[in-house]
Amino acid sequence: MKFKKYHKPGTAPGTLIPPIQAPPEVQIKLIAYSTDFFEEKKLHDLDEIAAYRDSPHIIWISVEGLGQVEVLEQLGQQFGLHPLALEDVLNIGQRPKLDDYESHLFFILRVAHLKEEIETEQFSFFLGERFLISIEETPGNGFEMIRERLRRGRTQIRRSGADYLAYTLIDAAIDSYFPVMEFLGERVEDLEIEVVEAPSKATLIEVHKLKRELLHLRRVLWPSRDTINMLMREDEGLITQQTRFFLRDCYDHAVQIIDILETHRDLSTGIMDVYLSSLSNRLSEIMKVLTIISTIFIPLTFISGIYGMNFDADASPWNMPELRAYFGYPAILLFMLIVALVMLGYFRRRGWI
Amino acid sequence: MKFKKYHKPGTAPGTLIPPIQAPPEVQIKLIAYSTDFFEEKKLHDLDEIAAYRDSPHIIWISVEGLGQVEVLEQLGQQFGLHPLALEDVLNIGQRPKLDDYESHLFFILRVAHLKEEIETEQFSFFLGERFLISIEETPGNGFEMIRERLRRGRTQIRRSGADYLAYTLIDAAIDSYFPVMEFLGERVEDLEIEVVEAPSKATLIEVHKLKRELLHLRRVLWPSRDTINMLMREDEGLITQQTRFFLRDCYDHAVQIIDILETHRDLSTGIMDVYLSSLSNRLSEIMKVLTIISTIFIPLTFISGIYGMNFDADASPWNMPELRAYFGYPAILLFMLIVALVMLGYFRRRGWI
Amino acid sequence: MKFKKYHKPGTAPGTLIPPIQAPPEVQIKLIAYSTDFFEEKKLHDLDEIAAYRDSPHIIWISVEGLGQVEVLEQLGQQFGLHPLALEDVLNIGQRPKLDDYESHLFFILRVAHLKEEIETEQFSFFLGERFLISIEETPGNGFEMIRERLRRGRTQIRRSGADYLAYTLIDAAIDSYFPVMEFLGERVEDLEIEVVEAPSKATLIEVHKLKRELLHLRRVLWPSRDTINMLMREDEGLITQQTRFFLRDCYDHAVQIIDILETHRDLSTGIMDVYLSSLSNRLSEIMKVLTIISTIFIPLTFISGIYGMNFDADASPWNMPELRAYFGYPAILLFMLIVALVMLGYFRRRGWI
Amino acid sequence: MKFKKYHKPGTAPGTLIPPIQAPPEVQIKLIAYSTDFFEEKKLHDLDEIAAYRDSPHIIWISVEGLGQVEVLEQLGQQFGLHPLALEDVLNIGQRPKLDDYESHLFFILRVAHLKEEIETEQFSFFLGERFLISIEETPGNGFEMIRERLRRGRTQIRRSGADYLAYTLIDAAIDSYFPVMEFLGERVEDLEIEVVEAPSKATLIEVHKLKRELLHLRRVLWPSRDTINMLMREDEGLITQQTRFFLRDCYDHAVQIIDILETHRDLSTGIMDVYLSSLSNRLSEIMKVLTIISTIFIPLTFISGIYGMNFDADASPWNMPELRAYFGYPAILLFMLIVALVMLGYFRRRGWI
Amino acid sequence: MKFKKYHKPGTAPGTLIPPIQAPPEVQIKLIAYSTDFFEEKKLHDLDEIAAYRDSPHIIWISVEGLGQVEVLEQLGQQFGLHPLALEDVLNIGQRPKLDDYESHLFFILRVAHLKEEIETEQFSFFLGERFLISIEETPGNGFEMIRERLRRGRTQIRRSGADYLAYTLIDAAIDSYFPVMEFLGERVEDLEIEVVEAPSKATLIEVHKLKRELLHLRRVLWPSRDTINMLMREDEGLITQQTRFFLRDCYDHAVQIIDILETHRDLSTGIMDVYLSSLSNRLSEIMKVLTIISTIFIPLTFISGIYGMNFDADASPWNMPELRAYFGYPAILLFMLIVALVMLGYFRRRGWI
Repeated sequence: MKFKKYHKPGTAPGTLIPPIQAPPEVQIKLIAYSTDFFEEKKLHDLDEIAAYRDSPHIIWISVEGLGQVEVLEQLGQQFGLHPLALEDVLNIGQRPKLDDYESHLFFILRVAHLKEEIETEQFSFFLGERFLISIEETPGNGFEMIRERLRRGRTQIRRSGADYLAYTLIDAAIDSYFPVMEFLGERVEDLEIEVVEAPSKATLIEVHKLKRELLHLRRVLWPSRDTINMLMREDEGLITQQTRFFLRDCYDHAVQIIDILETHRDLSTGIMDVYLSSLSNRLSEIMKVLTIISTIFIPLTFISGIYGMNFDADASPWNMPELRAYFGYPAILLFMLIVALVMLGYFRRRGWI
Repeated sequence: MKFKKYHKPGTAPGTLIPPIQAPPEVQIKLIAYSTDFFEEKKLHDLDEIAAYRDSPHIIWISVEGLGQVEVLEQLGQQFGLHPLALEDVLNIGQRPKLDDYESHLFFILRVAHLKEEIETEQFSFFLGERFLISIEETPGNGFEMIRERLRRGRTQIRRSGADYLAYTLIDAAIDSYFPVMEFLGERVEDLEIEVVEAPSKATLIEVHKLKRELLHLRRVLWPSRDTINMLMREDEGLITQQTRFFLRDCYDHAVQIIDILETHRDLSTGIMDVYLSSLSNRLSEIMKVLTIISTIFIPLTFISGIYGMNFDADASPWNMPELRAYFGYPAILLFMLIVALVMLGYFRRRGWI
Repeated sequence: MKFKKYHKPGTAPGTLIPPIQAPPEVQIKLIAYSTDFFEEKKLHDLDEIAAYRDSPHIIWISVEGLGQVEVLEQLGQQFGLHPLALEDVLNIGQRPKLDDYESHLFFILRVAHLKEEIETEQFSFFLGERFLISIEETPGNGFEMIRERLRRGRTQIRRSGADYLAYTLIDAAIDSYFPVMEFLGERVEDLEIEVVEAPSKATLIEVHKLKRELLHLRRVLWPSRDTINMLMREDEGLITQQTRFFLRDCYDHAVQIIDILETHRDLSTGIMDVYLSSLSNRLSEIMKVLTIISTIFIPLTFISGIYGMNFDADASPWNMPELRAYFGYPAILLFMLIVALVMLGYFRRRGWI
Repeated sequence: MKFKKYHKPGTAPGTLIPPIQAPPEVQIKLIAYSTDFFEEKKLHDLDEIAAYRDSPHIIWISVEGLGQVEVLEQLGQQFGLHPLALEDVLNIGQRPKLDDYESHLFFILRVAHLKEEIETEQFSFFLGERFLISIEETPGNGFEMIRERLRRGRTQIRRSGADYLAYTLIDAAIDSYFPVMEFLGERVEDLEIEVVEAPSKATLIEVHKLKRELLHLRRVLWPSRDTINMLMREDEGLITQQTRFFLRDCYDHAVQIIDILETHRDLSTGIMDVYLSSLSNRLSEIMKVLTIISTIFIPLTFISGIYGMNFDADASPWNMPELRAYFGYPAILLFMLIVALVMLGYFRRRGWI
Repeated sequence: MKFKKYHKPGTAPGTLIPPIQAPPEVQIKLIAYSTDFFEEKKLHDLDEIAAYRDSPHIIWISVEGLGQVEVLEQLGQQFGLHPLALEDVLNIGQRPKLDDYESHLFFILRVAHLKEEIETEQFSFFLGERFLISIEETPGNGFEMIRERLRRGRTQIRRSGADYLAYTLIDAAIDSYFPVMEFLGERVEDLEIEVVEAPSKATLIEVHKLKRELLHLRRVLWPSRDTINMLMREDEGLITQQTRFFLRDCYDHAVQIIDILETHRDLSTGIMDVYLSSLSNRLSEIMKVLTIISTIFIPLTFISGIYGMNFDADASPWNMPELRAYFGYPAILLFMLIVALVMLGYFRRRGWI
């Protein structure tokens, strides 16, 4: 999630500027339906909408791509959408939120995509009494399954209002986080094994990256939950009681996803702790080896150093008579062996070897 | 607790799909009772229910196993259960929750089992005016004790309504966490002793595992508490005042279990701290041994190295005259001893030995 | 505080089972009083209560010891106490709580004792319109001072109702934590000095133990505070406005004790930090000594090693002519001295010595 | 943000003292406007205001600089501003806040400037029915863009009331944090790379400084959000419904900035963790090198020390006969090589090399 | 802040016992005033108050020192003060709080003094309709400035009621924390510099002490804020609307002080982190020096050791022929130099030197 690009401070509110990297092509699909009626077309001229607007059917206008500001402007005029809401549609990088403009509700959610990286795409909605406008950042076929359900006829979705259609889209948006969570869950498990068996600097960087992604998802998911909750409680009469039951289910899903997310966060903090302990452990291991080798050989080397001294045994009987002793050499080797064994015994008693 | 398996995003809500690994056999037990009446049978044909449905008795239908979707579908039709609730029954891995569907309450709890691992099993309820439907993930005889109390006749349970029956099941579900907590408490105590006396990498992994399990239980228990609380406060008139008193007791149990859980969590964090300090301590111990040995023998070895040099004493009177001194060798040994003693004195003064 | 012993899941609620280790002897004291009347007796037969029950006096029944279940059963029948409340009385290890049973209030507090360990004892109350039943885990003379105040006559306690009597007992229970807090405060101060002056593994274990005790007290004190607060706000008319003022004072005491507790907790966390830093510091000190000794003597030993080589000076004029130089030995000693001084200078500049 | 300078305790409230370092020059600009009217002038005599005060136009008085207390005093008298509010204007270092004085609202925000350091400047407002007084700490042209929009005529800002003007200023103030956040975001990213690739003490100090700045911004931004929220909810009728919509947008911006800030904070905590692990890692690396070198060469040196001893081979056949063996020297070199290879093999098996 | 001394558990409430170390001398000053009237006297006999009590003037009784219990008792009788409140006055070490006794408000604040240590002194108030009683722990001239303002005549304070007088005292009490915060802020800054430039064990102890003091101030300031807030919202009609505005200002000051305090706390936690990293850094530095010296000289010493072996070159042509080589010695010195340079190159490449 890139954060919202901001206008120069002092710009008049409601100024519509397309996002910098928005591709120019924009697809506009219209579906008008009621229990017994279904029509679907790609729109090229937005004036075509007017006819449907007056019919008793429910219309769903799906805009894919943000490259053409004038599309939004025309929709704004036809449906009386608030300029601030339109500005927010274009400012990708918004947090999920619900704004109540009395005649219509405006809400933003984000859909998750699992590409090389986890990405979230802004997804804006205008819900009025008999219309739903959905606006995606980039063209795609994200909602083909829902269109298919509409085409099939006489399904619940055809019998219900625009609010139920909105629910199905919200449900799809929220459910897009389940595969992402499953993917992250696998990464968490892999890291848990890695940190115990072969912790390395790469593990650390991986954990940091994971935490970063969880952090970003968290910043998307909590306000998503709140948005759905506000939608359930809105009091403009745009949401029926029946749809409220379905939104509650959707809300439960959001809570569940957040639950998984928070578990992942706690686990990755735990992994960090294990990693740090592992480092400490490894350092101890290294030092133990050094200490064992050093404390065995340093005294031995000292002893050999003693008998490497050149005191002149001829000058005095006190000067290193051992050097001429009959068993001098084997005796000193034996002595060294004993010293080494004593040391090893000491280490064993301390539990180091 | 495995997390909820999700449907493909965009699937119609209320689609019933059995959990992947659900065994196909399903047991359905019916008990109809009132103060003076008691009948118990295994159901094979769900149409048999209709007769009891119209009688003035309270009926308890207990479904064990999720392998047959059609059982849920038929129950749904006969009792007017909401499709979303039925979907949740099949999506094992739900968080405990209460959904109020006006004519009936739907709630989910989780029962804990203490096998090799701590597992929680989903346990779903539909509570209506004169019926209770309980659905367990797997067949078992978890509620035999309660059935026995029903059979005994003229107990409080026979005199009360379906809400009191629901309470006894909830109470059994919540109380299933007490043995789990006791088991975890023993593990915490064992780890507290282990971390002080013999900390090892295994201790660390054990603590991490413990924290993980506590984390999962936590995610189950907090919403359990909330579910019971919501049940106490529901206002559809399905819960009598008398049963509310009993639910309050149940709520107290849940709070108590959470209390123990949080204590365990705090203690295991404390164990982690002690573990890290122990590592640090041990490293210091190791370094101390190395340093003592090294700082004693390195200077001594240097001295012996001096007198191992081959300067030609014949070439000059300045060249190592000590080598020919009468007491040269004993004097140097004495000097080395003094150096070693000074070092040991220094270490003792610093409190290292 | 031992946690609540639980019944086998599925046991009927309200089943009365005495705590395992409860001694069988139970003392029951009755005091009946009003402004002008005072009578005190040890009860052996609980039927004696009935007479007082009908009198206009306030009666205080104090049960000390939980060993005889039938005492509770009879009290339950005579005063109409709820079976769930009686069950809670016997399940020692309860959290402080208040249950409102309309005709009477049931609340549990815990009294602190400062023996070798800090222990808390469960203390249960039933407060009705003109009676107070207090139940202690073990016989003792904990409330002799209050009885004395009752005997003295015409004190405020004699002029007031059962609610004021309850207040005096609650006040004594809460105030029992002050000496405990003072004792813990001294331990915190001792540990703060110890951790700076002579940190050892024992310090660590002591801090962990202290944190553990604070944790347990915390789990008792927060719900105690809430219980008193709920008592102040109960609306069955059992608490007079005047007693509410006194309970507010008691509530302030509870808040104050919690305040001290939290301060102790924060301080002991701080002690842990200081301990860990001390360990790190000590390791640095040890390494510094090792490094100074090693870096001075290792190069010197190398130099002495050079001149201990046996190159044959006779075979070539290039082979170690220094060995035959007139000032070879003193020169090399001087050189070694210079090397050592340079090293020491370097360490001084780095601030290590 | 410097914290508020305080008066000597006991000073009478409402005493106006200019900030110590306030430059004496103060600029006062007046704009009076309505849909069809626009006048702009620099004020030298504050009495000129009176005329506009009675006209039906909206007036905006913009004071830049706090050096002249009498300006505030006169404004206070003319508009009936509360002395405590005037005192707060002069006490720079205030937290953002809203005070409702019934006839007018007083609120304080802070504007961010991105100079060498991030600085925030206090920005005070008095909003009345047809007037807005804005007071900046230092002269500047911060709001030239807004003046330009006013001059342009027949824009929304000209058609709306003083509340909308206030909104545009608040919007500009809040939006001034976006570039700051972007700047901080780049620093966070730089530090994330630095800490992985080349962590040094400078990195640590940089992270600490960053956290400090985030801390200060946090203390400004949370109350800013609350101030806007209170403004949206004020009930003196000074804010129209239309402006509320715009303030909600502004509130969303504030929430978004706080979101970014909190993300930065979490990331910088993560950077600290990575830094500490890197240190630990590096220490392990260093120790590994030392240990490998030492454990290979210390035994070898010991062996060479053995054969450097001066036992007199002539004195006994047991005394170092190896020295005269035909292949003694090559054999011992070979033995040393084998020892070294065994050691290397051991290190390789442990994964150290 | 010393914590409250407690009575023996079971003591009757409202028992007045002076604090142990309270000096016996107590000063009582009375000021009676209204807009046109002012009288000030030192009281020796508390019965003198009665006359003023009936006059239409506002009276302020200021008691300095807690050594004489009978002063409080008499005040209690004359003004109808609650015994529990009087008990709290004497139990120094109270948390700030407000108790509403209907006819009068009782509140406690704490004044900060900046002596060698930061101390807070208990400051109790009784505010009635036309009287204010303020009680300080120790005699002093803390409020001379306010008395001066009263004497001056026709100031706002003379025109207002007892509630405004209370406000001025509260304001002075709260503002006494500003110099303390400034002092602590300087210590934080000093420590921030010290920890980067010359961290030592003294720094650690200093940070711990600072955190301890901040902890204690925190425990005073949060309830102070709440007390002022409750005062603003009291509904006995003792506080006028005008004074509420002033109290809001006072509340803002309290919030500001808490803000600074929390910033200090966060910063000192940051200092601790930097300190720990510094320790780790320093250890790495030390180890680096040791490792560089060791890994250069240990192999060299080994080489010199080789050529110090005494293999008999006469016994075999294989035995150390190098010793007799013409350039043997210079060659080996050159070889050693190369080894040393290779090592240095390796360290440089790793960035250690």
